[in-house]
Amino acid sequence: MHDGGFAPWTRERTERIERVLEGLLPLASDPPARLHEAMRYAVLGAGKRMRPLLAYAAGELTDADPSDVDGVAAAVELIHAYSLIHDDLPCMDDDTLRRGRPTVHVAFDEATALLAGDALQSLAFGTLARGHASNVAGACAALADAAGSRGMAGGQAIDLAATGTTLDEQRLTAMHRLKTGALIGAAVRLGAHCGRVLDARETRALDEFVDAAGLAFQVVDDVLDVEGSAAALGKTPGKDAAQGKPTFVTVLGVDAAKAEAGRLREAANAALEPFGGAARRLRELSDWIVLRRR
Amino acid sequence: MHDGGFAPWTRERTERIERVLEGLLPLASDPPARLHEAMRYAVLGAGKRMRPLLAYAAGELTDADPSDVDGVAAAVELIHAYSLIHDDLPCMDDDTLRRGRPTVHVAFDEATALLAGDALQSLAFGTLARGHASNVAGACAALADAAGSRGMAGGQAIDLAATGTTLDEQRLTAMHRLKTGALIGAAVRLGAHCGRVLDARETRALDEFVDAAGLAFQVVDDVLDVEGSAAALGKTPGKDAAQGKPTFVTVLGVDAAKAEAGRLREAANAALEPFGGAARRLRELSDWIVLRRR
Repeated sequence: MHDGGFAPWTRERTERIERVLEGLLPLASDPPARLHEAMRYAVLGAGKRMRPLLAYAAGELTDADPSDVDGVAAAVELIHAYSLIHDDLPCMDDDTLRRGRPTVHVAFDEATALLAGDALQSLAFGTLARGHASNVAGACAALADAAGSRGMAGGQAIDLAATGTTLDEQRLTAMHRLKTGALIGAAVRLGAHCGRVLDARETRALDEFVDAAGLAFQVVDDVLDVEGSAAALGKTPGKDAAQGKPTFVTVLGVDAAKAEAGRLREAANAALEPFGGAARRLRELSDWIVLRRR
Repeated sequence: MHDGGFAPWTRERTERIERVLEGLLPLASDPPARLHEAMRYAVLGAGKRMRPLLAYAAGELTDADPSDVDGVAAAVELIHAYSLIHDDLPCMDDDTLRRGRPTVHVAFDEATALLAGDALQSLAFGTLARGHASNVAGACAALADAAGSRGMAGGQAIDLAATGTTLDEQRLTAMHRLKTGALIGAAVRLGAHCGRVLDARETRALDEFVDAAGLAFQVVDDVLDVEGSAAALGKTPGKDAAQGKPTFVTVLGVDAAKAEAGRLREAANAALEPFGGAARRLRELSDWIVLRRR
């Protein structure tokens, strides 16, 4: 446990996951050097590390030692990093700026970006399999579901198919539950499973939290895509609208989207009530998800 | 155990893995339907199923029940299928014919092919995690290593970098140990680990077998790429040469490559001696690897 404020906790855990990821990734000098360089470029020294932070915060719900959460935290971040590389490829969103730097296929080349994403997905499962989750087989199965065709990859496929069309709020929500919600949910659930066993009421509460916080993240992302600057976001703003993608802003309007984010923040906080003070960091994180500027 | 000849054993096990894969893959009617259709197209109804057959044959070394090997056999085939989809993409080998049919990005589109490959990799780990390997965590870690940047994906990166250059036999062998050897090795080792525990001598013997059989497969592949027809191969022959890729044929010449394949077949058979009659199917498979016409 860390007794200080949210900012020092976040800094400490961010430095922690950075060290863990640094230790997991092959050295850039190891052959094949260009592939390893691309993997490191994609993962290290950038990113908000929201998913690892959620995993560590969820671990505090169940008194898990941070060292037992490291594997889960790293695995979800590696899956996230791989998905960004592939998402940015010309055949997908064709983006050139990410985390304030050229995307991987721009900095390297398309084939290297493809393989770096592929290898990062493998590394994620290897990391989880070698980690200290209390039920490694169950954790690997859950991460596979969160990442696969009924999770993140499925959400991306729906997103692609929806480009240039309109979705109602219900279908947009369903898409984002897969595209971003599934991996955020895995970060929270797998982090919590690194400690004591949750009872049925707590499991339901965590499901409600994950639902609200995951959706809040996406609604705020859509608002920032309209109102943010490239400098603050580290990626190209306005891209979703330019590509004709339905977003919570195009479906609800900016003001209603902001109101929805506020409502989801309250729902996330309410869901955490059964955990009392142990949910402090998770509550602070879901507040940050809604109030962030990038 | 199956007491019949090699052909009926192969047919029975091929039908078995087909049913297992069929049951694992999401229905084409499940949303996202196009993604699931592409995943099924890539995996079902084609392919030699060499890796699953190796897993089942290796399971017979340790008296594993085929039902306990199903998860391993399916997982390695799903990794193989994902790698073929990504390998065929325009930014990689840019191939249009595979297993006698249009490649996935031709039959669907590039983004769907990318995501189908990604989702198949997730499904592979989910399948292994839910399977009956005696040490699921260890199996997931081993598959991750075999698929990742120090295994298959790393071999593909070296292959890309080598295009248009010349490699000596030693570096070509090192590349193929990763590109195809790592996953073939995982199929054999993980299959064998579904039964009784191997002793140190048996473990070494299996390592030697994997080394020889994996390399034999690649040498024969290179010979077939020169001598085979598209109809027999189900893929575009002569492609490696056209792309300026170093192969065992360009490095050794056809005759020396054939002689090398024969030598590797003998080495593979010799390695299996400690297993006696239990190695029958594995021996027959490594013979088939060298004698096959496709």
